[in-house]
Amino acid sequence: MAKDLSTRSDNYAQWYNDLVIKADLAENSAVRGCMVIKPYGYAIWEKIQGVLDKMFKDTGHSNAYFPIFIPKSFFSREAHHVEGFAKECAVVTHYRLKTSPDGKGVVVDEDARLEEELIVRPTSETIIWDTYKNWIHSYRDLPLKINQWANVVRWEMRTRLFLRTAEFLWQEGHTAHATKEEAIAEAETMLNVYADFVENWMAIPVIKGIKSPNERFAGAVETYAIEALMQDGKALQAGTSHFLGQNFAKAFDVKFLNQDNQMDYVWATSWGVSTRLMGALIMSHSDDNGLVLPPKLAPVQVVIVPVFKTSDQLAAITEKILPVKQALEAKGIRVKYDDQETHKPGWKFSEYEFKGVPVRITVGPRDLESGTVEVARRDTLEKDVLQITDIEKKIVNLLDQIQKNLFAKAYDFRENNTFRVDTWEEFKRTLDTTGGFISAHWDGTTETEEKIKEETKATIRVIPLNNPKENGKCIYSGRPSTQRVLFARAY
Amino acid sequence: MAKDLSTRSDNYAQWYNDLVIKADLAENSAVRGCMVIKPYGYAIWEKIQGVLDKMFKDTGHSNAYFPIFIPKSFFSREAHHVEGFAKECAVVTHYRLKTSPDGKGVVVDEDARLEEELIVRPTSETIIWDTYKNWIHSYRDLPLKINQWANVVRWEMRTRLFLRTAEFLWQEGHTAHATKEEAIAEAETMLNVYADFVENWMAIPVIKGIKSPNERFAGAVETYAIEALMQDGKALQAGTSHFLGQNFAKAFDVKFLNQDNQMDYVWATSWGVSTRLMGALIMSHSDDNGLVLPPKLAPVQVVIVPVFKTSDQLAAITEKILPVKQALEAKGIRVKYDDQETHKPGWKFSEYEFKGVPVRITVGPRDLESGTVEVARRDTLEKDVLQITDIEKKIVNLLDQIQKNLFAKAYDFRENNTFRVDTWEEFKRTLDTTGGFISAHWDGTTETEEKIKEETKATIRVIPLNNPKENGKCIYSGRPSTQRVLFARAY
Repeated sequence: MAKDLSTRSDNYAQWYNDLVIKADLAENSAVRGCMVIKPYGYAIWEKIQGVLDKMFKDTGHSNAYFPIFIPKSFFSREAHHVEGFAKECAVVTHYRLKTSPDGKGVVVDEDARLEEELIVRPTSETIIWDTYKNWIHSYRDLPLKINQWANVVRWEMRTRLFLRTAEFLWQEGHTAHATKEEAIAEAETMLNVYADFVENWMAIPVIKGIKSPNERFAGAVETYAIEALMQDGKALQAGTSHFLGQNFAKAFDVKFLNQDNQMDYVWATSWGVSTRLMGALIMSHSDDNGLVLPPKLAPVQVVIVPVFKTSDQLAAITEKILPVKQALEAKGIRVKYDDQETHKPGWKFSEYEFKGVPVRITVGPRDLESGTVEVARRDTLEKDVLQITDIEKKIVNLLDQIQKNLFAKAYDFRENNTFRVDTWEEFKRTLDTTGGFISAHWDGTTETEEKIKEETKATIRVIPLNNPKENGKCIYSGRPSTQRVLFARAY
Repeated sequence: MAKDLSTRSDNYAQWYNDLVIKADLAENSAVRGCMVIKPYGYAIWEKIQGVLDKMFKDTGHSNAYFPIFIPKSFFSREAHHVEGFAKECAVVTHYRLKTSPDGKGVVVDEDARLEEELIVRPTSETIIWDTYKNWIHSYRDLPLKINQWANVVRWEMRTRLFLRTAEFLWQEGHTAHATKEEAIAEAETMLNVYADFVENWMAIPVIKGIKSPNERFAGAVETYAIEALMQDGKALQAGTSHFLGQNFAKAFDVKFLNQDNQMDYVWATSWGVSTRLMGALIMSHSDDNGLVLPPKLAPVQVVIVPVFKTSDQLAAITEKILPVKQALEAKGIRVKYDDQETHKPGWKFSEYEFKGVPVRITVGPRDLESGTVEVARRDTLEKDVLQITDIEKKIVNLLDQIQKNLFAKAYDFRENNTFRVDTWEEFKRTLDTTGGFISAHWDGTTETEEKIKEETKATIRVIPLNNPKENGKCIYSGRPSTQRVLFARAY
């Protein structure tokens, strides 16, 4: 166990916290609930951003930037939205400080009180729809498909690095459409973009579905979500996409002249993923030896560690290995050659293992003689000896293999931890033993959903898309049900 | 004059505001002083970000993210910093809203008052140095070279889109070093990075220099800056890099064990550029016909406009021109083919001219017959007829030529508007007629600098780097001076 990392089986929550801090991903700041994202963690987030940003642009979206502050009154405009968002948030009341009477510090200048308080955005639907009102007049202005990368603040009482923080980074897409059908199609497209990204880049399998009315975004007509299963059997919502109907268009009076020359309210979507994805990434693949990163998102994909005693040996290794490094880089692989003499090879081995670097290449004087190197993969911890001449091709394949293996492993885990359950006793027992996704009948009422949550802390994660119809009895109420839904305890 | 744009000569300030809004770059929001950066403006900012980010990484910096909130008390820790920054800022005092008594809106929940107020960061030295305290223990932890892309808030009373807004986007680099020399070298390196970027990408010539003590960053030992000259003869500070000495290390008690096994305070720098660069970009090159963008930063570098009456004609043009578009794109050129039928060619011509697209290619049925296209460049408004077979090579050259021409034009303008002035009368007359940079003797005192500012609104922009020593008399006080400095009225 590297760096005194707790084990997953001993204390999963502690293991996660230790890992985030000791792998230099993030830490708590002097401001309650706000995190510092450290360079290594931020490098992963930048990779996530880069890939998603390209996917958004490839599906016709542009980036823009809207104010961080929202006038308090905006929240009251959409009736459900105010319930969901205008409560636990940072409120700016003043715009000036002044020197304190004792001259030693600063105090709030009471003369500089804002006429209307400003809220630090918890999400931007209100300020954006207030802006869209001036941008949209006719069907020719539609669709309007905009994304924003931004920080948002929700005053969470219990915070955990990446998973739930007062300030977090995210992207929020906000689109406007001429028809209901087009808006629904957009919400579904973006759900698919998220699923594609999380599965093919983060190597995490997800279930696509819709939320029960109780779990819907405040102000949405329909909330689509992707749900992933973590190694402790708890679910994590990895992204949401909302069909907002005409709710915000009505709240902010955004009408357009349609092709039939009639005024109509605009149809809307919004969708987002956040630094929470970092939590999902860490929890899905990492082990008791530290972080495990999927190659596609690893800031360093291959680390080369020379083993040497003399500087002549180092020079010989460097001469031999630099062309290999360059050849790998020419294939777009991110390689680090760690020849610093301040640390011993053993220290480097455990450091890069702990940091989740997918592939480590070790090369020493004897390797030079035999024309070989040792290659270790982080996911299985297996080692292999390769001919230097083979490295280029084999490393490309190996990275691909690791990416696929991580997904397969996570997929198997999820399949092995998804249970069809038909009795209330089994439902509770499953939650308290294995956890995981529970596929069970539900009578479709919010009342039952809330009682199940009260008694077990499990919630309906999603009603899977294309869910087969099946007659049955609600696991809790015994009333008739037409389909199974996915329950789990969740982050 | 497109879109009722004011002319520069009539009203430069109005011309600028009109242009920013009518070219869809940015607009004012519902929140006083905060702007909305629209997709077209944001696309330019993304290009700026992308290039700078690579330059920062190439000079050994990593990105990270620090909290948006700073505890109020942090500002009082560094004596000069509190004077400069802890005054006009957004103050968060509460963390919850509740339903208003009439049930119709929300009000601040007085029970949710923060024990210590939080300031929305106007700049992050304090929170970052409070964090660095835990990261730096030994010389092995140094240098620490971190950059952050973030939003910041300064409660400006008079705001102008991009140039001065309450919230703006920027990057702030914060580095820590073991020696004074290394920190100074870092501050100078980053000044050179900024100068390189502004000159070679934005096509704006800059003067590198140091600020007078009066204009220094609050908490800095030395402030380096690059200054550019706008078309109205006013200067604009385009970037600053600060050598902070040990001021913040002392304020936040950041010590390290040096190589001699002694504890010492860390040496620091900080440096930043912001969305203000957008203002410089717009004002440097644009004209009475609209925006003019340097090719390297233009979101669309080449627009192709087909001229057609029938859909058969459009099909024939498209067939001929798509391979050209693809060939240009293969060379990394950003090309838009605008074949939408909702707008006439004439509308498109003026639209892209107004939006500053560097090159327009027009192709009609007769061009197909002759195997030619018409090529118009935005900077000179010149048109030329080219053989289709030549386009690929010629467009690459043309974009390069436009980039260079914009720089040369701006450079000539600055040279023609930099004046050596030796009398106070001439100093005032120059400011009130041509404006521009005024190279004049100054006695080196803050008192004189302030009086000059009071009487003329001109400030010392910089003391140029490698400034030649020259004996003379202060333009204002008549006292002896050892060098000329650059004065101007400024944004």
